[in-house]
Amino acid sequence: MSRSYAIIGTGALGGLYGALLQKVGLDVHFLLHSDYQHVQTHGLIVESPLGNFTLPQIQAYNDAAQMPACDVVIVALKTTQNHLLPQLLPPVVKDDGVVLVLQNGLGIEDDVAEIVGGERVIGGLCFLCSNKVGAGHIRHLDYGEIKLAEYTPNYQPMGITQRLQQIARDFEGTGIPILLESDLLLARWQKLVWNIPFNGLSVVLNARTDELMAHSSTRILAEELMREVVTGAKSSDRLIPDSFLQKMLDYTLKMTPYRTSMKIDYDDRRPLEIAAMFGNPLHFAQERGVTLPKITMLYQQLQFLAKMS
Amino acid sequence: MSRSYAIIGTGALGGLYGALLQKVGLDVHFLLHSDYQHVQTHGLIVESPLGNFTLPQIQAYNDAAQMPACDVVIVALKTTQNHLLPQLLPPVVKDDGVVLVLQNGLGIEDDVAEIVGGERVIGGLCFLCSNKVGAGHIRHLDYGEIKLAEYTPNYQPMGITQRLQQIARDFEGTGIPILLESDLLLARWQKLVWNIPFNGLSVVLNARTDELMAHSSTRILAEELMREVVTGAKSSDRLIPDSFLQKMLDYTLKMTPYRTSMKIDYDDRRPLEIAAMFGNPLHFAQERGVTLPKITMLYQQLQFLAKMS
Repeated sequence: MSRSYAIIGTGALGGLYGALLQKVGLDVHFLLHSDYQHVQTHGLIVESPLGNFTLPQIQAYNDAAQMPACDVVIVALKTTQNHLLPQLLPPVVKDDGVVLVLQNGLGIEDDVAEIVGGERVIGGLCFLCSNKVGAGHIRHLDYGEIKLAEYTPNYQPMGITQRLQQIARDFEGTGIPILLESDLLLARWQKLVWNIPFNGLSVVLNARTDELMAHSSTRILAEELMREVVTGAKSSDRLIPDSFLQKMLDYTLKMTPYRTSMKIDYDDRRPLEIAAMFGNPLHFAQERGVTLPKITMLYQQLQFLAKMS
Repeated sequence: MSRSYAIIGTGALGGLYGALLQKVGLDVHFLLHSDYQHVQTHGLIVESPLGNFTLPQIQAYNDAAQMPACDVVIVALKTTQNHLLPQLLPPVVKDDGVVLVLQNGLGIEDDVAEIVGGERVIGGLCFLCSNKVGAGHIRHLDYGEIKLAEYTPNYQPMGITQRLQQIARDFEGTGIPILLESDLLLARWQKLVWNIPFNGLSVVLNARTDELMAHSSTRILAEELMREVVTGAKSSDRLIPDSFLQKMLDYTLKMTPYRTSMKIDYDDRRPLEIAAMFGNPLHFAQERGVTLPKITMLYQQLQFLAKMS
């Protein structure tokens, strides 16, 4: 019998991954909110460098309580919606099922672990450019890779488990590369090396990534912020080498000019994921006696802008 | 014979002080640029809480070489125009005259000293809300006090000299309070305690002073930036007590909601005085082995925005 997936949040990210899984034959159940009526009638449209396609019929729900319990539950909401998870998650997770948290930031698996138990939580990090351009209409622009790693309450690395390998197999044929990692905490800090400077500065300075890289003052500032992320990671003995920073800077220079996800949220007047992406890492480092002054300042600026918008 | 003043830059600041000096009977010569024709014909209009008045005729010039040498030359240009001073200053300073530098920032007297000799330079700090609302039309909104202090190349305090007292007497009757200070460097750092956080953050966060004070994240950040200014001052043994910071914060809370001068420049797409107000103080502290990370970051952000605007 085909493995079942629940997609909690059918937006640019959840909608894309869910549609690709359905396309390769898995049994996918989509939770929707504002787009529910439209998608129930018209299905999903996906534009993607992996090939454009339409799913005229999907298993759509606007109430988690109506969904079947699934083998894998993908949390694809923005972290600003996580207060909804205590209602949404319990009905959709099978007893031996897992919850895959495809969200940005740090410490977000803790929220999910409190609801379903830490042993059922897997962390996922998406490297994806995708927008929702209309109801049930997703435009996948670039990238798509997902890193998966087991969650444990104290971030002890757990190695590569069978269930991680099973999810990787489920994605075979979707065109989405799955990388299995043994250390979730290291992967999360590594992702913050890019996310903290570029999401933060793009909002505060109203700029695209290429503009931030084109000026020496912001290129230097981005690198200094990256170094503070490295210091944060080191507070729990995760070492990120200089070569990793250099790779991130080179990669950003070569990227297509790009509005970051936080900048898109800000421009569209949606809540910003600053607690998960800035507040939690700062708190995490602070608890280990480490202060990160420039990231703190960027967070203060973002908190102000979030309230003013 | 009445003392003569030259006003180098007849804008919101130079125009106001010059008009008030003429009104109390001094011999004032005004250098203008874009407003020259209009002011030559129509004179100056001043709206002020000190009383509205018009000067139908003033001694206006659009060429410094045509001006007489004066007893006191007031430099009232923005620091972004200081590259013009080597041309403008020499003809207008009497042999026993002085140059009064009414500009923001740190280290700006050095530029003037190189041109006219350090012994002829006096530093002035203006606490003024004034806008130019049209050609030759100045709207003085609030405050107006000027602090004066002698300049010396190594910022050795010089005490209160006779020539400072003479200038203070010249302002008698204008309604502008003149405070004489013995230590220019201390006065400059004290002024930066307010200017650095509020000018900088108002531009980066597109905010008025009352908005910055209304949110805890920016109120705390402003205070942290103030503490770095105190650290900068301490690098050359100028001590600014905590009570001074508290007074500045209280005063900002009570101020009329206000766009800072740098924000007005930014909104009007004029060059920003960031080199004088941020670059020079950072360089000054750096030379004494002191780094100011948050002010550095704010300067980096401002440099980016200045280039993008």
